Amino acid sequence: MNKALLESFFRHLGQYVTLSEEEFHDILSFFEERNLAKKEILMHAGGPCTHTHVVLKGCLHMYFVNEKGVERTVQFALENWWLTDLLAFQNKANTDFSIQAVEKSEVLSISLDQQGQLLEKYPQLERYFRLIYQTAYGASIMKMKYLSDFSKEEIYFHFTEHYPKFAQRVPQYLIASFLGLTPEYVSEIRAKKRS
Amino acid sequence: MNKALLESFFRHLGQYVTLSEEEFHDILSFFEERNLAKKEILMHAGGPCTHTHVVLKGCLHMYFVNEKGVERTVQFALENWWLTDLLAFQNKANTDFSIQAVEKSEVLSISLDQQGQLLEKYPQLERYFRLIYQTAYGASIMKMKYLSDFSKEEIYFHFTEHYPKFAQRVPQYLIASFLGLTPEYVSEIRAKKRS
Repeated sequence: MNKALLESFFRHLGQYVTLSEEEFHDILSFFEERNLAKKEILMHAGGPCTHTHVVLKGCLHMYFVNEKGVERTVQFALENWWLTDLLAFQNKANTDFSIQAVEKSEVLSISLDQQGQLLEKYPQLERYFRLIYQTAYGASIMKMKYLSDFSKEEIYFHFTEHYPKFAQRVPQYLIASFLGLTPEYVSEIRAKKRS
Repeated sequence: MNKALLESFFRHLGQYVTLSEEEFHDILSFFEERNLAKKEILMHAGGPCTHTHVVLKGCLHMYFVNEKGVERTVQFALENWWLTDLLAFQNKANTDFSIQAVEKSEVLSISLDQQGQLLEKYPQLERYFRLIYQTAYGASIMKMKYLSDFSKEEIYFHFTEHYPKFAQRVPQYLIASFLGLTPEYVSEIRAKKRS
């Protein structure tokens, strides 16, 4: 895998825990590297959820297809973000979600057993994962507030103002899906704002 | 604090980490004990979010008041569940949420600084918090799926079937608030089911 990407991941981990370069390279041996084409599926709804994934380059989204056949994105992951169906992952169960590459992506994937062995060998990584999940959980509580408090229009503009990186990189129809809006509605309010 | 409650909390922690009784009593010294009357407010929206709380007995809920003046519950906590506005807590910021006792409750509260010192002295608790947040985050992703996938009626009956302990203990209007339903609607679908 590209050296610059691994260095970026090393710096990311270094924000949370102290690791030597040697330890980092040993840690990488617990992971599988995957290169994904744009739109490639990494996890299939209905199948087992065997791995959790961290994005080194690119963007993933996790979604389900609702009863009307409409795709609904529940989570995105850009660089250094983790993504999986955590409940299915920790129970080694089947998942209702799919994970797909939004753009050409490079990810590191780890199984529950490998993660268990990794954390046994490097217990300092417990702190890293604790902080990652703490923030993700906190953000999901905040998202629930926005979704139920804001008007549809406010939800869209709040999101694009607070996460401009996402708004620039991710196709509008996926942002719409994540916010529970239709692509048509998003086109309409963007046109209204421009005019 | 009641000895049986502390023993129950000790057993709860013991499911995740190995601790001696002596360590457990030292750990308790990092917390403040609070006895809350029914409906007592533990955290006020607009004020600082200084502590995270674990319920030893009773039930808390965290809510905000939306623009229409309606209370919306975003999270409950029964025994051995933690509750706070995590983003505000970790940033020592003001919160948009309030926390209130649903029934007479006994809780342990810890500040961010005290939690930092606790985790420095007992790094094995990183694992405990990692698993707590991992499950909570996984569950919040699943909740987003239910809220956007199910009909209002399905949301209500799914919740009461999967969390019968909650459904028995928590007033119907709070369950309605948590699920984004009105109390009137919940009364209506319950009456329809009984008939």
